[in-house]
Amino acid sequence: MSTYRRLKEEAFEANMGIPRLSLAIFTFGNVSAFDPASGMMAIKPSGVAYELLKTEDMVVLDLEGRIAEGKMRPSSDTPTHLHLYREFPGIGGIIHTHSTYATAWAQSGRAIPVYGTTHADHLAGDIPCAPLMTRTEVEGDYELETGRQISRHFAKEGLDPAHCPMTLVAGHGPFAWGKDAAGALYHGAVIEQIAQMAWLTEGLGRHERLPRYYVEKHFMRKHGPDAYYGQS
Amino acid sequence: MSTYRRLKEEAFEANMGIPRLSLAIFTFGNVSAFDPASGMMAIKPSGVAYELLKTEDMVVLDLEGRIAEGKMRPSSDTPTHLHLYREFPGIGGIIHTHSTYATAWAQSGRAIPVYGTTHADHLAGDIPCAPLMTRTEVEGDYELETGRQISRHFAKEGLDPAHCPMTLVAGHGPFAWGKDAAGALYHGAVIEQIAQMAWLTEGLGRHERLPRYYVEKHFMRKHGPDAYYGQS
Amino acid sequence: MSTYRRLKEEAFEANMGIPRLSLAIFTFGNVSAFDPASGMMAIKPSGVAYELLKTEDMVVLDLEGRIAEGKMRPSSDTPTHLHLYREFPGIGGIIHTHSTYATAWAQSGRAIPVYGTTHADHLAGDIPCAPLMTRTEVEGDYELETGRQISRHFAKEGLDPAHCPMTLVAGHGPFAWGKDAAGALYHGAVIEQIAQMAWLTEGLGRHERLPRYYVEKHFMRKHGPDAYYGQS
Amino acid sequence: MSTYRRLKEEAFEANMGIPRLSLAIFTFGNVSAFDPASGMMAIKPSGVAYELLKTEDMVVLDLEGRIAEGKMRPSSDTPTHLHLYREFPGIGGIIHTHSTYATAWAQSGRAIPVYGTTHADHLAGDIPCAPLMTRTEVEGDYELETGRQISRHFAKEGLDPAHCPMTLVAGHGPFAWGKDAAGALYHGAVIEQIAQMAWLTEGLGRHERLPRYYVEKHFMRKHGPDAYYGQS
Repeated sequence: MSTYRRLKEEAFEANMGIPRLSLAIFTFGNVSAFDPASGMMAIKPSGVAYELLKTEDMVVLDLEGRIAEGKMRPSSDTPTHLHLYREFPGIGGIIHTHSTYATAWAQSGRAIPVYGTTHADHLAGDIPCAPLMTRTEVEGDYELETGRQISRHFAKEGLDPAHCPMTLVAGHGPFAWGKDAAGALYHGAVIEQIAQMAWLTEGLGRHERLPRYYVEKHFMRKHGPDAYYGQS
Repeated sequence: MSTYRRLKEEAFEANMGIPRLSLAIFTFGNVSAFDPASGMMAIKPSGVAYELLKTEDMVVLDLEGRIAEGKMRPSSDTPTHLHLYREFPGIGGIIHTHSTYATAWAQSGRAIPVYGTTHADHLAGDIPCAPLMTRTEVEGDYELETGRQISRHFAKEGLDPAHCPMTLVAGHGPFAWGKDAAGALYHGAVIEQIAQMAWLTEGLGRHERLPRYYVEKHFMRKHGPDAYYGQS
Repeated sequence: MSTYRRLKEEAFEANMGIPRLSLAIFTFGNVSAFDPASGMMAIKPSGVAYELLKTEDMVVLDLEGRIAEGKMRPSSDTPTHLHLYREFPGIGGIIHTHSTYATAWAQSGRAIPVYGTTHADHLAGDIPCAPLMTRTEVEGDYELETGRQISRHFAKEGLDPAHCPMTLVAGHGPFAWGKDAAGALYHGAVIEQIAQMAWLTEGLGRHERLPRYYVEKHFMRKHGPDAYYGQS
Repeated sequence: MSTYRRLKEEAFEANMGIPRLSLAIFTFGNVSAFDPASGMMAIKPSGVAYELLKTEDMVVLDLEGRIAEGKMRPSSDTPTHLHLYREFPGIGGIIHTHSTYATAWAQSGRAIPVYGTTHADHLAGDIPCAPLMTRTEVEGDYELETGRQISRHFAKEGLDPAHCPMTLVAGHGPFAWGKDAAGALYHGAVIEQIAQMAWLTEGLGRHERLPRYYVEKHFMRKHGPDAYYGQS
């Protein structure tokens, strides 16, 4: 029996949420689960259709990318995931999709302005958009550079990945994360919802960011030390 | 057996309509049911996923917010619901969602103009949008102030909640109500439909409000003393 | 057993297509079936939810509006249907919905320009939009006047209802018809599809009507004397 | 038993993907499968609803259009399919739909600019749009001319159908192909997804083509000699 059975199940369940929540068609997306205790990550194999995916297909790797379990090639985005786990301590799951509205914002290269409380319930500022990479980066170790572009942009903007669990990558699409793979899936669905609402808001011809005091109130009632949303 | 079984069932059924009618993802929404005879309200617990929700999870409170039944924390929007039941006599159910198009209008801070008969079948004027609150209100008892902002806006605009069963709250989203929880759910779906149609109408570059005599005809054929729509 | 069983079944089946094809929410829509031999029409009762609807609920009337069978009140749009059967000989089914995109065009008061072959496969010109009615018409026998507005507009524009099986009514929504109730339902879905495509086409900033020779080719290959589409 | 059973099954399965992937309503679409060994093509019969379609309804023809098997009339678009198989060697399946966003681009007569990696994962340039045909072409052998218009446009633009597996036809809609019918269906769904994302991107007011070095990287990682996406 697999040493990493639980981690693979967690990754499998979250990957199956991608088609269930309509976050991608065919194989355009992947979720990984990371276990800080063992330092191991389980991720979807590359290019396998969700309807054929099984728990045992998940590929388990260490943070250097050495495969510990799994017969298939891991997602081509694996180096992006590994980099983010190395750089963003405390996260236990990552999702990447090509969900429709979030990808449209990424394609326009724009951060998503915080227009309402649905957004502010999840992060206390715009959803960042890491800019396009240089030719050298793209022609080099592309998927690793994608992860570096995200962590560089977070550093430059002073963003804390624990409080800003989602980002766009210009020309590409959304990445999101959470305390586990289910949390990453949740944020992968939330960024699409926020992206659609913001798109529609701009279409109404009047749009200003939510005042700062609103943003802080909403973020803190869910995430602050005195949070009073939910059951715990 | 629960003293408030029927009220909890009514609240539960209406809450389950939120995912069924695609009015919100995850836990973004809630419905309450109010019984004027006992003065008690049943509402969804905070942050519980719809697929896990059970009738017995509903929390029962009096209009002062004292919990009479239920082991879970009630929806964080409970003070908004309680305020509206106190201020708007005759309503027996309230819904709050973050449905996509209605939220976009709320985020733009715009009332929804009455562009057609689908709208006029339900209310005889624009769907109001209560403006943004002050910093003091937001940093104070926020959810109570949200209810106050709605009732203040209705008073200022001379709106009768019996004839205008839905509103937007700027920067936030839609609230709607009805004679019971099922009626609130109905209006929660109707505001989203009207919001989408109005959004699309503005996209066509030509949009004027429906003439007043149309609005009155349509509203009265469904709601006037000589209403002839439906079976009663 | 009902004298009009077959007619009621035909009307019932087509009405159930409204929710199945997502042409309306709740009770916003109705289909009727007309039998030229007996001169009788079966139509949905007013304000009954589709999930509760049964074949025996259909109301049967003659073209003067006298009820021959049925215990419920017929759709409030019944006078519109009756008028169109009287004025447009050869049609055997009528649908009225508030489908989203078609209603947006109606709310803008615009005819839908023929932008492509999907449209031209069904009618050889723009989808007409009957203009708003006068105060006198709206305050009079409103539903009858809605039918009159359609037939007047067709007469004024020289349109043949046999070749133009769908229309918008300004400020209201779409009406469509066919050789039977199933054919009406088909056109009720087609107008929504065409309306959405035309809306999206205008959003791309470049839109001209399909050249006349294209429109005629497409219409004739499906509807002309030498039609070669389909199996008959 | 049918000589072409496998080919008919392949065509049938891919045709059933059209409604499953929401690429067309009613009968607006068709897929064919081509077997280079026998030189035979199986295609959907004309105007048959997907819910009634059976494997044995598929019509088998040679590349000159002579029917070898099947009792029904083949799709009216058959001459377009036959022309493309004759002109584009190496393809084994073709799809034509009226999917909503792709059709909107076709109706506007615009090629779809390569705005992001979802697009570049599938082709290394804009999705072409064959221009409107002349009156003579449309009034002549229309469906054959549609095929010619596509192959002429590819020749003029120097496009290789092996690397550019999809196109728009102005005023009409999308056509796509692949190494077999399932591959054609895949590209028929991908063009709709790309079309929607590009439409939404333009709505955000800032849109530039993805830099050339990105496009080449993404296309080559999936399709180049050193492709590393997927399991083979």
